[in-house]
Amino acid sequence: MQVIILAAGQGKRMRSRLPKVLQPIAGKAMLSHVIATARKLQSSKICVVYGHGGDQVRAALPDADLSWAEQAQQLGTGHAVQQAMPHIKDDGVALILYGDVPLTRVETLQALIAASEGKRVALLTVNMIDPKGYGRIIRSAAGNVQSIVEEKDATPEQRRVTEVNTGILCVPVTKLRDWLGRLSNNNSQGEYYLTDIIAMAVGDGVEVAAHQPSAVWETLGVNNKLQLAELERIHQRNIADSLMENGVTLIDPARIDVRGELSCEPDVEIDVGCVFEGTVELGDGVRIGAHCVLKNVKIAAGTHLAPFCHIEGATIGADCSIGPYARIRPGTQLAEDVHIGNFVEVKNSSIAAGTKAGHLAYLGDADLGSKTNIGAGVITANYDGANKFRTTIGNDVFIGSDSQLIAPVTVGDGATIAAGTTLTSNAQAGELTMSRTRQSTIVGWKRPVKKPA
Amino acid sequence: MQVIILAAGQGKRMRSRLPKVLQPIAGKAMLSHVIATARKLQSSKICVVYGHGGDQVRAALPDADLSWAEQAQQLGTGHAVQQAMPHIKDDGVALILYGDVPLTRVETLQALIAASEGKRVALLTVNMIDPKGYGRIIRSAAGNVQSIVEEKDATPEQRRVTEVNTGILCVPVTKLRDWLGRLSNNNSQGEYYLTDIIAMAVGDGVEVAAHQPSAVWETLGVNNKLQLAELERIHQRNIADSLMENGVTLIDPARIDVRGELSCEPDVEIDVGCVFEGTVELGDGVRIGAHCVLKNVKIAAGTHLAPFCHIEGATIGADCSIGPYARIRPGTQLAEDVHIGNFVEVKNSSIAAGTKAGHLAYLGDADLGSKTNIGAGVITANYDGANKFRTTIGNDVFIGSDSQLIAPVTVGDGATIAAGTTLTSNAQAGELTMSRTRQSTIVGWKRPVKKPA
Amino acid sequence: MQVIILAAGQGKRMRSRLPKVLQPIAGKAMLSHVIATARKLQSSKICVVYGHGGDQVRAALPDADLSWAEQAQQLGTGHAVQQAMPHIKDDGVALILYGDVPLTRVETLQALIAASEGKRVALLTVNMIDPKGYGRIIRSAAGNVQSIVEEKDATPEQRRVTEVNTGILCVPVTKLRDWLGRLSNNNSQGEYYLTDIIAMAVGDGVEVAAHQPSAVWETLGVNNKLQLAELERIHQRNIADSLMENGVTLIDPARIDVRGELSCEPDVEIDVGCVFEGTVELGDGVRIGAHCVLKNVKIAAGTHLAPFCHIEGATIGADCSIGPYARIRPGTQLAEDVHIGNFVEVKNSSIAAGTKAGHLAYLGDADLGSKTNIGAGVITANYDGANKFRTTIGNDVFIGSDSQLIAPVTVGDGATIAAGTTLTSNAQAGELTMSRTRQSTIVGWKRPVKKPA
Repeated sequence: MQVIILAAGQGKRMRSRLPKVLQPIAGKAMLSHVIATARKLQSSKICVVYGHGGDQVRAALPDADLSWAEQAQQLGTGHAVQQAMPHIKDDGVALILYGDVPLTRVETLQALIAASEGKRVALLTVNMIDPKGYGRIIRSAAGNVQSIVEEKDATPEQRRVTEVNTGILCVPVTKLRDWLGRLSNNNSQGEYYLTDIIAMAVGDGVEVAAHQPSAVWETLGVNNKLQLAELERIHQRNIADSLMENGVTLIDPARIDVRGELSCEPDVEIDVGCVFEGTVELGDGVRIGAHCVLKNVKIAAGTHLAPFCHIEGATIGADCSIGPYARIRPGTQLAEDVHIGNFVEVKNSSIAAGTKAGHLAYLGDADLGSKTNIGAGVITANYDGANKFRTTIGNDVFIGSDSQLIAPVTVGDGATIAAGTTLTSNAQAGELTMSRTRQSTIVGWKRPVKKPA
Repeated sequence: MQVIILAAGQGKRMRSRLPKVLQPIAGKAMLSHVIATARKLQSSKICVVYGHGGDQVRAALPDADLSWAEQAQQLGTGHAVQQAMPHIKDDGVALILYGDVPLTRVETLQALIAASEGKRVALLTVNMIDPKGYGRIIRSAAGNVQSIVEEKDATPEQRRVTEVNTGILCVPVTKLRDWLGRLSNNNSQGEYYLTDIIAMAVGDGVEVAAHQPSAVWETLGVNNKLQLAELERIHQRNIADSLMENGVTLIDPARIDVRGELSCEPDVEIDVGCVFEGTVELGDGVRIGAHCVLKNVKIAAGTHLAPFCHIEGATIGADCSIGPYARIRPGTQLAEDVHIGNFVEVKNSSIAAGTKAGHLAYLGDADLGSKTNIGAGVITANYDGANKFRTTIGNDVFIGSDSQLIAPVTVGDGATIAAGTTLTSNAQAGELTMSRTRQSTIVGWKRPVKKPA
Repeated sequence: MQVIILAAGQGKRMRSRLPKVLQPIAGKAMLSHVIATARKLQSSKICVVYGHGGDQVRAALPDADLSWAEQAQQLGTGHAVQQAMPHIKDDGVALILYGDVPLTRVETLQALIAASEGKRVALLTVNMIDPKGYGRIIRSAAGNVQSIVEEKDATPEQRRVTEVNTGILCVPVTKLRDWLGRLSNNNSQGEYYLTDIIAMAVGDGVEVAAHQPSAVWETLGVNNKLQLAELERIHQRNIADSLMENGVTLIDPARIDVRGELSCEPDVEIDVGCVFEGTVELGDGVRIGAHCVLKNVKIAAGTHLAPFCHIEGATIGADCSIGPYARIRPGTQLAEDVHIGNFVEVKNSSIAAGTKAGHLAYLGDADLGSKTNIGAGVITANYDGANKFRTTIGNDVFIGSDSQLIAPVTVGDGATIAAGTTLTSNAQAGELTMSRTRQSTIVGWKRPVKKPA
């Protein structure tokens, strides 16, 4: 089985410089969705027919397993498939897919391929409540497809047919090559229509089987941003349903966005308004508060995120308490039972078990031991304007509020840093270190008064 | 009237360790919703039949007014009710409810009980657009229920009946005890079906009245996380509608979550994406900005919350201006006209009228007077690593930016604390206090340069 | 063409002190929506009939182009129009609109006016799936409106009519004046009904044309907060559709709120949960992350906002990177390639190209040069408790972490400020300035121990 993906359309109605097939669903180009589906079908060849924005399309998909066929002029779907044929071997069937029809399920296409039995034309059709504008499927008494009649050519009786052509079909390659060669552009648009091969098949006595997907959305294409948003929501709802079927509690399935892979162990609960990007793994009993944004994060069992967390590129241990308003950036590893509180930023740091940074702190390029307490307003000054340096903090350390640790610097185990310290050299283990000026009172000082405007 | 609640089901399809009846709707176990409804009916007895996860269920509901009956083996709904009967007195009617049918309205059940007239069987039935799979209600010409016919036993004509059995019913206790004793498990599932008592009632000449709820959702049960989410949204929409009927302006009724009790005086406006937990009271004209999370909060008239606030366990006075990004934690009281600004955390503190903390501050275990100004970056260092201490700040105080107040410490009325001060002992009223090092310039100092990687 | 807007209703069911016509849709009074529509029709006169809460209504709409007619007593729609007539000239047609029907499209009203041809009565009617409660439109065989029959007076056949009266109509002024004079309140409500003029028109042989809007929502009125929310969502969905038609990518059209004017250049992408207020302009390729709130903001091409930004009254240059959790306040101008990071507040400041303030900082009343680096925790102390002063920072400056700049103060080009500095006087260009106390260790100091409770 070989796959031909038509991806040459311009998509003028998208009103975008990005070629239509690169427009994203769930953060991934529509064409990438179709290619991912094709790969799951274990096709021996995936040939993409490109045209408009071809350089952008090819650059976006550098994968070695793809063949590329250029359709320099847009002369119709039949013409597009013709461009692919030099890449296709005279063996088995070819499945024709579309780069702007991103949500067809693998199971549906497997059934379509099976329906072709290697020798028949198998056509994906779908029943539309309102079939207006679509090519109607005319079947024989025996149920085989006899022809596809376009709206404008249909009799009133034919217009009442609600089964319509999706354009997705599976054709024996040798037949396809023959029929493509016989296509004509003798029609009002002056284009070569792939659909015309159905009539040729019937004429040649090749059976045309029809198969239907389980849902209409599998066959929907995208021509504008409204349709793109519509498919985005359908796709997200499918993901939400799948999560819930696997036992995840979603407070509102209409308010979760997953752009990548979200895998959840049992008893995960996700509150409203959360966004997941890249690969996110949530352990047993993890709870994600409202309005959190997570990207490429792994969270171990029992950890709770309060609302408004933004976490990217981090590994978080078990039973941690994170947020609200925690900002954790790439390169961060938290061990178990760590607390990162509000308005705390952690970047490229490792924090051992039981350590807490509860309030208004910046921990960048730092390695923290266990059971250490980071006071409010503590800042690791990791950047001197030219280079970045690491801060090393031991176990059982207490860093007083509003201290600055000027990296590279090390704070020994059990050390205490007094509030307001600017720590420029290492602090001894077990001792109190500070840089403090004696408090004084300026008696008789007068407060400034409001100046006239 | 006595209530029997069936709550023994396992709920395998929930894919959770939490027993099904403890799964939450609006943050509260489904069983707790049913019990709350039963209490509003002023029943003399509430008997819960438990089974799977029984210890968890009983531990979650320690209320003294509940009787508990164990159903060690799940042998059908009739068997479940049998387990409860030792707790039920031979007096009046018993109402059978289900721990996984959480949204039945009190008014509906009151009408059902009334329909029983103390002597009839009263059955809650509902019309389904698609009744497939449900037991159909077969009524006599006079409108009385004659039998319940299961899908598989129904004639084509009976299948067209859209009125179906909900399982909720009200039965005279003496009759119930009699009929339960006569139940048989001679059926394909080998279970004792409560439904079978309808046929017995008709056989015994006891009238069976049917009553219908005002909406199908009142009768919906939960077997998986999709259904849990569906009822969550129905429940939330009901709450939203009730708020709006009482005059609350909701910018989007589909984007508010109330998990507890939200009471609002006139002219409250709530923007999109807000979550309310516990008991929240909003005074006249209060406005809640987008994406705020409030738990156990009381807010007086005229106060505005900007977006992204997270407030818990606080009492907030009138005409305050809070947020955006204000984090107020338990034990906090704000008087009127207080301003808490962005990235400010307040914990277990009292703040008097007209005081402002506008930017990036931490006020923990502090008592602030009125008309005091807290500069950006000010921190109350309330924790010495072992104990917590209070900070006391008077009226008309000015705390300069980035100061740390090392508790226990007191700042007198009218005092000024210079920016960057580490305040370790009390500051005199009316005077300027500071701990400051003279500024110096290191002439000729060279900046570090970027090191080669 | 002259417009009469009926805006005297009390709106008791809104349960609000705010008069009904001032209740907002998309942050703007319903009456203002209707007036804006009337202005687009280029009417020579806009006369608003006010009553309940009249002072509030007039104060909310001080525009000089409006005429006001008081309806002291609410005696029906006909009576309301009568109050306006002294303001209306005997010339052309009068269009009657309603202050609580805010979403009628200009195109629909233009077509209605055209249908009147200056001499006919033109009535806006609409087909309702469920017409119950509405006055039915009875048409002649020729299609002209013959009468409006109220529900209670309708025959069973008439009740099956789904075309109903919206109340919006266009009438030649001289005829209107005549008919209004002939209205009677001889009905069960004792009110003067505007609708009665239809019968008078037919009786006088004046043709009554009916015109229909493209959607039912154009004719929906608001009587309670549920209907207000319903129209809010319809209006927001219309705005979302319009944005998408113009090429904006909306991740979820059901989760964007626009309260004002949002204009977007090509390839703008807006993530879920964003709120736009006032006038917002987004340049080419701008991307707005999830849950951002923007008010009166102009953002140039290529700038990205991470989630949770709150920006108001700012101009942001090209290719900036803002957020997450950036709070930018009025009076701020950012040049190109500026980075404002998490928990950073900028107020009334200008920041030149390439400058970065990445973490936990407050920049208020400040002017920053280009390629300057603001460390974490830096604060401009712009307020001395009485007056505000500006901070001036040059190009290529490095402000170390946790420094406070006590305004008025100037930092010269190329200056370096050491971490933790309290800068009270100007810092020389090119030099290192600091206020630092030597770090010391208190050997043998004992940490406090937990006191018994």
